[in-house]
Amino acid sequence: MEKLWGGRFQKDLTKAVELYTESISTDQKMVLEDIWGSEAHAIMLAAQKIIAEEDLRHILKWLEKAKQDFLNGTFQLQLELEDVHMNVETYLHRGAGPEFGGKLHTARSRNDQVITDTKLHVRFEILRTQRLISDLQYTLLRLAEEHAETLAPGFTHVQHAQPITLGFWATAYASMLTRDHERFNGAYDRTNTSPLGACALAGSSFPIDRRLTARLLGFASVHENALDVVSSRDFASESLACLAILMSNLSKLAEEMVYWSSHEFRTIELDDSYTLGSSIMPQKKNPCVAELLRSRTGRAYGALMQMLTIMKGIPSGYNRDLQEDRVPLWESFGTAQSSLAIFSGMVGSLKVKTDRMNELAGAEFATATELANYLAHERGIAFRQSHKIVGGLVGLLVEQEKTFSDYETVRAYLSEQGICIPVEEIRLLVDARHVVEAYKSLGSTSPKEVKRMVEALRRRTDEHVWEIEQKEKAIESAQVLTEKIVSGILAGRHLAELL
Amino acid sequence: MEKLWGGRFQKDLTKAVELYTESISTDQKMVLEDIWGSEAHAIMLAAQKIIAEEDLRHILKWLEKAKQDFLNGTFQLQLELEDVHMNVETYLHRGAGPEFGGKLHTARSRNDQVITDTKLHVRFEILRTQRLISDLQYTLLRLAEEHAETLAPGFTHVQHAQPITLGFWATAYASMLTRDHERFNGAYDRTNTSPLGACALAGSSFPIDRRLTARLLGFASVHENALDVVSSRDFASESLACLAILMSNLSKLAEEMVYWSSHEFRTIELDDSYTLGSSIMPQKKNPCVAELLRSRTGRAYGALMQMLTIMKGIPSGYNRDLQEDRVPLWESFGTAQSSLAIFSGMVGSLKVKTDRMNELAGAEFATATELANYLAHERGIAFRQSHKIVGGLVGLLVEQEKTFSDYETVRAYLSEQGICIPVEEIRLLVDARHVVEAYKSLGSTSPKEVKRMVEALRRRTDEHVWEIEQKEKAIESAQVLTEKIVSGILAGRHLAELL
Amino acid sequence: MEKLWGGRFQKDLTKAVELYTESISTDQKMVLEDIWGSEAHAIMLAAQKIIAEEDLRHILKWLEKAKQDFLNGTFQLQLELEDVHMNVETYLHRGAGPEFGGKLHTARSRNDQVITDTKLHVRFEILRTQRLISDLQYTLLRLAEEHAETLAPGFTHVQHAQPITLGFWATAYASMLTRDHERFNGAYDRTNTSPLGACALAGSSFPIDRRLTARLLGFASVHENALDVVSSRDFASESLACLAILMSNLSKLAEEMVYWSSHEFRTIELDDSYTLGSSIMPQKKNPCVAELLRSRTGRAYGALMQMLTIMKGIPSGYNRDLQEDRVPLWESFGTAQSSLAIFSGMVGSLKVKTDRMNELAGAEFATATELANYLAHERGIAFRQSHKIVGGLVGLLVEQEKTFSDYETVRAYLSEQGICIPVEEIRLLVDARHVVEAYKSLGSTSPKEVKRMVEALRRRTDEHVWEIEQKEKAIESAQVLTEKIVSGILAGRHLAELL
Amino acid sequence: MEKLWGGRFQKDLTKAVELYTESISTDQKMVLEDIWGSEAHAIMLAAQKIIAEEDLRHILKWLEKAKQDFLNGTFQLQLELEDVHMNVETYLHRGAGPEFGGKLHTARSRNDQVITDTKLHVRFEILRTQRLISDLQYTLLRLAEEHAETLAPGFTHVQHAQPITLGFWATAYASMLTRDHERFNGAYDRTNTSPLGACALAGSSFPIDRRLTARLLGFASVHENALDVVSSRDFASESLACLAILMSNLSKLAEEMVYWSSHEFRTIELDDSYTLGSSIMPQKKNPCVAELLRSRTGRAYGALMQMLTIMKGIPSGYNRDLQEDRVPLWESFGTAQSSLAIFSGMVGSLKVKTDRMNELAGAEFATATELANYLAHERGIAFRQSHKIVGGLVGLLVEQEKTFSDYETVRAYLSEQGICIPVEEIRLLVDARHVVEAYKSLGSTSPKEVKRMVEALRRRTDEHVWEIEQKEKAIESAQVLTEKIVSGILAGRHLAELL
Repeated sequence: MEKLWGGRFQKDLTKAVELYTESISTDQKMVLEDIWGSEAHAIMLAAQKIIAEEDLRHILKWLEKAKQDFLNGTFQLQLELEDVHMNVETYLHRGAGPEFGGKLHTARSRNDQVITDTKLHVRFEILRTQRLISDLQYTLLRLAEEHAETLAPGFTHVQHAQPITLGFWATAYASMLTRDHERFNGAYDRTNTSPLGACALAGSSFPIDRRLTARLLGFASVHENALDVVSSRDFASESLACLAILMSNLSKLAEEMVYWSSHEFRTIELDDSYTLGSSIMPQKKNPCVAELLRSRTGRAYGALMQMLTIMKGIPSGYNRDLQEDRVPLWESFGTAQSSLAIFSGMVGSLKVKTDRMNELAGAEFATATELANYLAHERGIAFRQSHKIVGGLVGLLVEQEKTFSDYETVRAYLSEQGICIPVEEIRLLVDARHVVEAYKSLGSTSPKEVKRMVEALRRRTDEHVWEIEQKEKAIESAQVLTEKIVSGILAGRHLAELL
Repeated sequence: MEKLWGGRFQKDLTKAVELYTESISTDQKMVLEDIWGSEAHAIMLAAQKIIAEEDLRHILKWLEKAKQDFLNGTFQLQLELEDVHMNVETYLHRGAGPEFGGKLHTARSRNDQVITDTKLHVRFEILRTQRLISDLQYTLLRLAEEHAETLAPGFTHVQHAQPITLGFWATAYASMLTRDHERFNGAYDRTNTSPLGACALAGSSFPIDRRLTARLLGFASVHENALDVVSSRDFASESLACLAILMSNLSKLAEEMVYWSSHEFRTIELDDSYTLGSSIMPQKKNPCVAELLRSRTGRAYGALMQMLTIMKGIPSGYNRDLQEDRVPLWESFGTAQSSLAIFSGMVGSLKVKTDRMNELAGAEFATATELANYLAHERGIAFRQSHKIVGGLVGLLVEQEKTFSDYETVRAYLSEQGICIPVEEIRLLVDARHVVEAYKSLGSTSPKEVKRMVEALRRRTDEHVWEIEQKEKAIESAQVLTEKIVSGILAGRHLAELL
Repeated sequence: MEKLWGGRFQKDLTKAVELYTESISTDQKMVLEDIWGSEAHAIMLAAQKIIAEEDLRHILKWLEKAKQDFLNGTFQLQLELEDVHMNVETYLHRGAGPEFGGKLHTARSRNDQVITDTKLHVRFEILRTQRLISDLQYTLLRLAEEHAETLAPGFTHVQHAQPITLGFWATAYASMLTRDHERFNGAYDRTNTSPLGACALAGSSFPIDRRLTARLLGFASVHENALDVVSSRDFASESLACLAILMSNLSKLAEEMVYWSSHEFRTIELDDSYTLGSSIMPQKKNPCVAELLRSRTGRAYGALMQMLTIMKGIPSGYNRDLQEDRVPLWESFGTAQSSLAIFSGMVGSLKVKTDRMNELAGAEFATATELANYLAHERGIAFRQSHKIVGGLVGLLVEQEKTFSDYETVRAYLSEQGICIPVEEIRLLVDARHVVEAYKSLGSTSPKEVKRMVEALRRRTDEHVWEIEQKEKAIESAQVLTEKIVSGILAGRHLAELL
Repeated sequence: MEKLWGGRFQKDLTKAVELYTESISTDQKMVLEDIWGSEAHAIMLAAQKIIAEEDLRHILKWLEKAKQDFLNGTFQLQLELEDVHMNVETYLHRGAGPEFGGKLHTARSRNDQVITDTKLHVRFEILRTQRLISDLQYTLLRLAEEHAETLAPGFTHVQHAQPITLGFWATAYASMLTRDHERFNGAYDRTNTSPLGACALAGSSFPIDRRLTARLLGFASVHENALDVVSSRDFASESLACLAILMSNLSKLAEEMVYWSSHEFRTIELDDSYTLGSSIMPQKKNPCVAELLRSRTGRAYGALMQMLTIMKGIPSGYNRDLQEDRVPLWESFGTAQSSLAIFSGMVGSLKVKTDRMNELAGAEFATATELANYLAHERGIAFRQSHKIVGGLVGLLVEQEKTFSDYETVRAYLSEQGICIPVEEIRLLVDARHVVEAYKSLGSTSPKEVKRMVEALRRRTDEHVWEIEQKEKAIESAQVLTEKIVSGILAGRHLAELL
């Protein structure tokens, strides 16, 4: 097959080189983006009188046909044509005639084309990821609402620290994901600027209108400096960093799902549909989905490191190194999206073992802090001193294999320290539910605060969803505008009436 | 030395464990932050009547003394006291008496304290980094302005692609850094929320006022969910990602500095003060500073990877793992800041070899694209066809070891293709300066566009600096407010009058 | 489709979970390995009288059929069957009847099966990679031999340092690759131990013979501790580390290919078949293959980081996280192998521009060190002093825009320093060829040393190839042994005669 | 302070550049190495008659003095002198006079000097790390021996899989560390080759004897190709990869220490000296040491990634980028060594809660596999079928909240499936101890196998220690040889008698 840029070359590429240099595998996702970008470019060329309106009509006719043929599977990318751009152009070239391929390529280079296609697709992937984050947040908030009063053990260092409510735990994750959502907003802003018209690296001597193509493609603005456009991929690194951080956040939840469904914790039971069995051990119900998410964190980290490595120390200007950006991008977006979707299902269907949660909430002297607080606050003992007294009490009870429920021992010990508290009151002071209800600070674990936070986080998530929808609509409007012009032209109307 | 939390423990830590677990080395940077946080906390406790105003006076007196002693070098952190919090508290404890240390620690844990100190310091590091980014941008823009008309070779694949202006190249970097600046804004927003009052993990049963401490510390809002506060470090990962991306961007510039100052390129000469000699080769003038920046990109990548690894798969709640967050943070901020500062100096002092730039700008058929554009635009030849014709011409000239300056050969070849262009016109068509002037698209390399972009980017950088100043002022106001209250209390006034 | 381990489960997996948990995509490469492992296991079970010889016959018949059907494309892995093990077992189950699937699974778990298959395949990938390393070494040594006397510029800091020979440069890379080869030997040793018989995690109560299966599969020894077998993947991390280091080494060569084929260096010309053109710039001949290799270094680094992340902080015992090991393994082996192959072709076909090499070899005062050495050695001037004198000379010449070829200036300057050298001698002292010939130390750049090193490195590479062949033969012998037993059994013979 | 290479330069470096380019902080560790290397070089120069023996005497006198002054703290590295080489040379220069500094620098460059020093020190760090690995192995083997019969739960997916012995678990880790040890052997081999004499990049025209310096420095051989010597740092990447893999292995143990000492598992109790308390929660005993090790895995990964990034895409020849190699090296060796040492102490002092281990060993139907095996093996039921039967039984018991100890239910269910087993036998079949004793395969969990493995691993570790000692002796011999020559020369003897 003849290469479009083959004028200067005497030998054919060997098959191995073709395979080594192709980007068809990752370009697959950007065929519609490439056609959209080409249509926008063609319309602009005609609007600027760089090509004739009649030429535009031919070009659009064949681009539309390419789109249909791609959607119905008859237009398939060919490896020998190296990338999506050459495939689409060759389609046009064969359909409309070689001169039209050439005309469309006026004032355009694969250097600005590829980054345009990539940004159009990344834009889409970010919004899809954000939607899935919101879904998981809603799931967590439903769980939080349902379990606003459910006691649960609160851990630090995987040691019992203080009793908390399960709803508090769930809102912590919902709160965390809020930042993941917002981090992607920054990545979106830096993605949503139009590269088209940067051409090879220096812009063009043709009187092109970059603002028009930006508008037709729904970009918020033009990324002006042409050299910066073709050289930079920090928008890709940024998305990959957002994805790596998101996965690092999710990996915490995964770790907890794994351990909490162990025999030792058994505070939750994952739904059968999110566990797998063993080929040799019939009793097993393995939290494989959570384990896989935990391990796919590695994919996101690796993808980020891949991109950063690519960008290390290469000079400005388009370098072929940049072709590799889509490999980590598509992999990491895909990993995060499937992980988010599956975690919404898993969290949404898990069964909380409230009895076990309750039992653990009060175990291991988890109410000791509050006992110390009480001594400090109500009995006027300096906190460090009260901490020391309660520490000594815990030591004694551990030694005697007793717990706080041995109220009499507690009473006697405190009395020795000169602090008289009736058993009745002690019972209350070391009761997990009583302790949890006593929390009053902003953002604390008390059921009241949890319910307030659920409401606040739900509103914030609603706002996020609204923002996503605004962005989707902006993209859709641009698509509709382009399509309206395309169909108008194909119907024989004049561009001037359509813009 | 007695540990403050030693009540329960029977053995002393061994020295090795002490060394393994200490964070004094990284806490060193946060002593003033820790004192500020303690003062804010103490004021709030008194405002909420949790401690008496008289106690507050004692606490503040000794905290102020600690600050002075730290600044004059007589209060030094001791390793045996594990971290900055215990050091400050022990100072207070020894000065004011143990009960005051305890009172200050009411409704507070090292878990919320450490993240408060860290965020206060990261906030400062982000602003400092942003200032240095702006400095480098101004330097680049000055260079761009000065060389808006200077011809330079434009590369893709390190091959001559099209002639550009050096100013265009410099604005590309200034444009790129704009995104780095803005990326840090997101990191700042997610850092600038108050953790104080989250306590160990669940909030507090004391009637604390988290909004007041947030105000005293200049945080924009309260990070509410206490469990999310103590578990999460995505704000740290985000800063580290911003730093890694920034360094990946700077590494491009470093690579170009290295190669451009080679004998082969020799388009620039670095100032002597930014190069080093060889101990064995007397003629050498090595671009070591640029090489070191390029290699320190590895530090930023490693630091990011370190933080992401730390966060992989640990459960929620404070885990000691999190102590390590400051190691990569301080290293990476330090690396980026020194790199930015030194690059401003290096770029600001480099000598552009305009003759060589000029020579290279027109070399290697760099004007071929424009010749093809001309054929397409002015002679109505389809672009792909004109591309093929020019490609053939280049092949011919290479074969005959000629250049575009062999106008007659060019004319003759084109004439064979049926295109008649007088030598006069050819001379112009393949002239680098003429080509560069002919660019007209938004963001292109023409001197006119470069000048426009310099202006626009300068305004944007001014805005960035203004934003930084607003943030600095907000922090300063909070410091002034805290100090005003502190000195008021020390002067015997009542808290109610001061808040 | 019914799951084989479904006894305990009430719900079907959803499609999303199936997709999330499958490993078919990476298991694809291990079908023959899985069948081989199964045959070895079955033979051992019969040899140990755990299953009857008649059962063995049935099992082997269907496993052989599975192999044939896989090779002719009629047995394809099904996603719903989760992994290769279940696919092969189900094939057997359907063909021979469910009892045979069960019998084969006696004293075996997917936990030891998957690691067996993976190791069998990694073993193969390591040898293939080592072969390709050797190929590239031979190519480099041919180049070195051909250019043992060709002058070339020697760089440090991308600045001309001393003249070298091109052969010296090429042997440096061949020497470097020697270490890459040997590093893989370690990875091979730690891969080539048999996991089979570790079962789920604890070994088996059946009287299995792990040494027999190890022998049938060509493993050098048994990896004994069953828990270590199923928990560990450091052999995978090690291969990935070897691959990352290999790619980091190759990326240096790639960088040089890119720059050396630039207009500024133009010391080599890549063969047309290893360069690509531009869609917009007809004159371009882009070193895309080298750029892509440079950027695929990122893939190898990312893959290593992925694996290390997976292994961070997971407990012992098989965890589903480990399923992900093959994703980075196959990607990174594939990347390195295609890169090696393509670089052999590229280096083997590049055209050295000896004139330009020659010109650059003497440029930029590259012979200054030798001049200083001469002053030190022959004229008794302390080296630091002679260095200073030559440094001053260079400074003067640069200022006057002269070179060492301005012999008279050189002579005059030295004379001022009290050193009298006739112009004749100066001419020789600063002549690159003379300098290069004068090198005499072991491993230095002189043609004589280069020729010696080429010979030595060729012998070492021959030895490497011989070692690879020994390993391949050992594997083949084991395959032949297994096949002999299989065909013997299928031909109705008794196992006792065949072992 | 005057720079030694300042001849050509007109301006002083600014302080910022000095700080940016210095390597004093990392060179600190290599002062003795630098002096040793210098002594060896000086001796060789004299042996080859390149310098006079009298000069050698002066040089050695001052180098010895530098060594003493460094050891007693009066010779301290100065930042302004850039690196250790310039510091030592300046010391010599000031003491013996400038000509001696110069003479010593004959046929040497900082390029080969720095890599010599680094390799000498890495050699030492590898051996120290290997010793610490052996220590931890011995500790694990003592634990394994003591607990060869102690029942413990065996996990896969953090779910109870099969009962194991604690000794089996401990030998798994000892077995794993064997590979870490051996991996470092490869790194050692590729470190232990002499770079000295490679000079700047091309070797030397002086008649140096590289084999002599190699012998004096205890290197196993000469790393010949000079360009490869100065360009390559794969030996550093390899050590960093070994360290990262080692830490990934240790992080598993850390994870288990953390969880096993939780309330939920409580199978071990860490010694007080390896846990820390809480400032707010008096009952806490936090496994901080284990958590910190887990998190410092990130340091090792980050260090590896830093080094790989540094090496990506830089050309051959010494580049200043390489200066950064020691930053990750020293950090990562330090982290691994302190982690190994502290883990030996922690594992050696932990208290195993055998009752709890015992209880968990039999919990969660962990003996189900063996029950299924029994049905398959003794009752002739196909394994898949027996697996299904036992799976169903487990399901039934879970539903009825019963365990295998409800022997009658088990008997009745099996009887329904047509399998008659008396309760007596069932009791045995599902008994964890009975199950564990029944294991018989090589490397399995039975006490007998554990004891055998302990012996085998101990022998292997003894061999490792013996190998380390051989290497240490080889280094020591070289040191003794050098010192003997040095003191001989200083005592006025002739070199010829001493070599």
